[in-house]
Amino acid sequence: MILYLVVLFVNGEFCKDPIKVKADDFFFSGLNKPGNTSNQVRAAVTAVNVANLPGLNTLGISMARIDFEPKGLNPPHEHPRAAEILLVLKGTLEVGFITSNPDNRLFAKILHEGDVFVVPFGLIHFQYNVGKGDAVAIAALTSQNPGVITIGNAVFGSKPPINDDILKIAFQIDNKLVDYHLQSRIWPDYIRN
Amino acid sequence: MILYLVVLFVNGEFCKDPIKVKADDFFFSGLNKPGNTSNQVRAAVTAVNVANLPGLNTLGISMARIDFEPKGLNPPHEHPRAAEILLVLKGTLEVGFITSNPDNRLFAKILHEGDVFVVPFGLIHFQYNVGKGDAVAIAALTSQNPGVITIGNAVFGSKPPINDDILKIAFQIDNKLVDYHLQSRIWPDYIRN
Amino acid sequence: MILYLVVLFVNGEFCKDPIKVKADDFFFSGLNKPGNTSNQVRAAVTAVNVANLPGLNTLGISMARIDFEPKGLNPPHEHPRAAEILLVLKGTLEVGFITSNPDNRLFAKILHEGDVFVVPFGLIHFQYNVGKGDAVAIAALTSQNPGVITIGNAVFGSKPPINDDILKIAFQIDNKLVDYHLQSRIWPDYIRN
Amino acid sequence: MILYLVVLFVNGEFCKDPIKVKADDFFFSGLNKPGNTSNQVRAAVTAVNVANLPGLNTLGISMARIDFEPKGLNPPHEHPRAAEILLVLKGTLEVGFITSNPDNRLFAKILHEGDVFVVPFGLIHFQYNVGKGDAVAIAALTSQNPGVITIGNAVFGSKPPINDDILKIAFQIDNKLVDYHLQSRIWPDYIRN
Amino acid sequence: MILYLVVLFVNGEFCKDPIKVKADDFFFSGLNKPGNTSNQVRAAVTAVNVANLPGLNTLGISMARIDFEPKGLNPPHEHPRAAEILLVLKGTLEVGFITSNPDNRLFAKILHEGDVFVVPFGLIHFQYNVGKGDAVAIAALTSQNPGVITIGNAVFGSKPPINDDILKIAFQIDNKLVDYHLQSRIWPDYIRN
Amino acid sequence: MILYLVVLFVNGEFCKDPIKVKADDFFFSGLNKPGNTSNQVRAAVTAVNVANLPGLNTLGISMARIDFEPKGLNPPHEHPRAAEILLVLKGTLEVGFITSNPDNRLFAKILHEGDVFVVPFGLIHFQYNVGKGDAVAIAALTSQNPGVITIGNAVFGSKPPINDDILKIAFQIDNKLVDYHLQSRIWPDYIRN
Repeated sequence: MILYLVVLFVNGEFCKDPIKVKADDFFFSGLNKPGNTSNQVRAAVTAVNVANLPGLNTLGISMARIDFEPKGLNPPHEHPRAAEILLVLKGTLEVGFITSNPDNRLFAKILHEGDVFVVPFGLIHFQYNVGKGDAVAIAALTSQNPGVITIGNAVFGSKPPINDDILKIAFQIDNKLVDYHLQSRIWPDYIRN
Repeated sequence: MILYLVVLFVNGEFCKDPIKVKADDFFFSGLNKPGNTSNQVRAAVTAVNVANLPGLNTLGISMARIDFEPKGLNPPHEHPRAAEILLVLKGTLEVGFITSNPDNRLFAKILHEGDVFVVPFGLIHFQYNVGKGDAVAIAALTSQNPGVITIGNAVFGSKPPINDDILKIAFQIDNKLVDYHLQSRIWPDYIRN
Repeated sequence: MILYLVVLFVNGEFCKDPIKVKADDFFFSGLNKPGNTSNQVRAAVTAVNVANLPGLNTLGISMARIDFEPKGLNPPHEHPRAAEILLVLKGTLEVGFITSNPDNRLFAKILHEGDVFVVPFGLIHFQYNVGKGDAVAIAALTSQNPGVITIGNAVFGSKPPINDDILKIAFQIDNKLVDYHLQSRIWPDYIRN
Repeated sequence: MILYLVVLFVNGEFCKDPIKVKADDFFFSGLNKPGNTSNQVRAAVTAVNVANLPGLNTLGISMARIDFEPKGLNPPHEHPRAAEILLVLKGTLEVGFITSNPDNRLFAKILHEGDVFVVPFGLIHFQYNVGKGDAVAIAALTSQNPGVITIGNAVFGSKPPINDDILKIAFQIDNKLVDYHLQSRIWPDYIRN
Repeated sequence: MILYLVVLFVNGEFCKDPIKVKADDFFFSGLNKPGNTSNQVRAAVTAVNVANLPGLNTLGISMARIDFEPKGLNPPHEHPRAAEILLVLKGTLEVGFITSNPDNRLFAKILHEGDVFVVPFGLIHFQYNVGKGDAVAIAALTSQNPGVITIGNAVFGSKPPINDDILKIAFQIDNKLVDYHLQSRIWPDYIRN
Repeated sequence: MILYLVVLFVNGEFCKDPIKVKADDFFFSGLNKPGNTSNQVRAAVTAVNVANLPGLNTLGISMARIDFEPKGLNPPHEHPRAAEILLVLKGTLEVGFITSNPDNRLFAKILHEGDVFVVPFGLIHFQYNVGKGDAVAIAALTSQNPGVITIGNAVFGSKPPINDDILKIAFQIDNKLVDYHLQSRIWPDYIRN
């Protein structure tokens, strides 16, 4: 199916019989439903990308709904292949991104309903529910397969784990913290496709 | 300001003193407010792009809120520099896009709250409120300056107008229809930046 | 064959045995012959793109010959994936394109033999023979598969047709015109690959 | 003027007053006139690119007319930033391009009026008039500033000249040939913008 | 100077007098000298990019030399705008990168002199000297301004600091660790341009 | 294997079971060994690109080691799909590139250990060992499959050969030189993948 879609709309060769493509290939349903926030970060990401919406292939865009309980956090993460624009549909979020070395400036902002915030390509960013009720946001990303690298999950929860010595030097923390705490915890699994 | 932003995050040269960039350059407020739908098409587009959100510059993405009264229509249009992903926040929309010659297939779909629909680059598409109440949708586009070409406005409402003979042949319609109706009407102005 | 070509010249992996590629894969013959203009618009487009010239694959360019009888029209259309440069080989053409909302400015010009005109990405444009004899033009486009969306064919001749209500609102025209005229006519089929 | 054009049609910020752009910025005149072939190669290239047609800026395309006397040659050259599609308007041309190491295959073809030939990005290619009369071709290139590197002019006619030792080793030729012949000749100046 | 370079070699308009560009604009000297590794991570990055080698502008590439004392670490970091290819000139390095959620797979490898390793766009990666002597590597990156985001510096050393609550939830660590250790330490400044 | 890699890290669809990708797909060994310079140009290029390092696929970068005996020459050549950054590891090299018509300026420089030089896209360039001992350089290129077109090999050593008449006119040289010398010699085969 995806092959057909690519052929129809992209700079490839014509497809002689693209008759099997249908409107449903450009359709996804269910972004009105909150994700399951029963996890360590009290937040949930519901992603709509080329894996569940084949018509996005080659179009360079995707979307996600993010739900937050009070004090829910979309933890510091980065998209290796995308910039992001975020719209708050409900609640109050503290959002921010950090620039590259050497400045590592934090650009942060409190967002309310109807507010929009932008994150440049590949920068580490987060959203945190600082309001009293639940919060909901919609993000659009500049790739049909943007990728998500949650910093904690990648650095302390990789499989296999990163060599202890590396983490100890990198974060100036001791063996015990690395081994018994950071690398032995279950890192949150809060993203659904 | 924009110059600074480009320099900070893009593949250009470093800026020695980008100290004037601030979080507000990546922020826009007001997308929770309905647009003014008191016009011929009973619909309103509120666009958030590089013209009112400078931090989008070079990031290749923008956003829009679209409001519809009952029977409100975002009329057939195309974005010369962007593909689109659309999310229905409220109401029921009939949406569709038409493929290139020679097939000119219409891919259409009725969307409800939480449904998502995709439009490939440059194709003519529309959204029409077929529900009983108001409808609201959020669109994200793959350009910080996607452009909107409303077919009626461009073909029949250009300034100066297109030569009558051309329109008569192109649409097989008579002089009277072209002159006294199509080219003399006020084409809807329903997009706000 | 196309697969081989891609592998030979593009940023993919080497092909161990691309021996089957031959000069004819980069060759097309027949653009000296006028297209058949016996149709409603008295014009004919003969397109040379990746569908009939496989060597164009991945190169981002294609070509077309356009023939016009007197009063022949290449009707308002847009290329969803390409900008265009047009050269008049013979005759006198009125050409133009219309910019995006809100200005919808028409940039038009009378062209004679040897004149060149440019159309930016995705804008609606046309060429009309205003001379006494036949006219011929050569266009080059920035995609090996640029697509052509003839406005009339797409908006009024799609399969299935667009909902009448949408067309009536969009163009402020009545049912009768939509149903008995615009949607029941045979839209011109003037493009050959 | 160019600045305005960029702002109007590209993914940059809106321009508040692009009123100075006019149709003539998208127009070039004179490609019906043969170039001056009174030179060593009996050929002439008349180039239409962003230097003399500002509306091409950011559009990634340009055009050229090439005139040939009998035995006229557009000598081996390459475009560092473009692929090419060539159409013969008149006469008979031997054309060819050579692939990369290690194969260095020559793909050559005799073209007649109406024939089209394609040259992938950056490959060395040539056109040679093997017919009895004059020949004319139109080329389109995938850049508004494609560049032309004529091999002889660059290797043997650079300013300052390349060190003799390098040329002697590279081409296994002797000092005398390099100094008194190749580097002392006037290399053809056959391209006009 | 940079402006001239851009104009000379890129798809912009011709420059009438680019005479001021000189060979030195494409030249950088000093990558034979070890960086100063007297810092917390016992490693040093000497970067050659558009900031100190203007001729790189628009070319999409840059280079760096990385020096390591024994147990020296180029700590986990990512390039928001670049992929990387790394060559070991001397010594023995443990290198690795981690893939996106949900797998977070670590791809690691011990490299010796003459070994090459690749890191895809935006992924977190590191190099650690596990040999007995000093080590040296050369990296090339796919941007003239790739950016470096050292994870520790960005997450725990940003200016201003990220809200404690966010870090506590994200890394499941306590206030004391965040405030008195991670956020109060001086994060390494080991990169020179 | 390559297919898996593409799917994992690029903007394509997710791969459900990319479990076969392994660290070795991102690894190449042996760039510490000199290439065999026993050839006409006394130089050798050892290329590391997508053909022998599959993890480079889609990443737009590759690397090469170049060895030179005294008076060894990497002869005038161009990369049809890449710009280049070169680092001298050992010895003294005369390097240069030539700009496009009409100026054909030679930008040349003597490089020593630790010096870096840049070559824009598609320009003809060379490196020549003007020192007393051997020389070694590392080049990085902006494509995983940059291509190498050695001017002599392509122009005088193509298979089949270019028509004599073309070479005689292009280089103003006589039949004898073309037939008995340039086209009958064995052009150097100095590049290994």
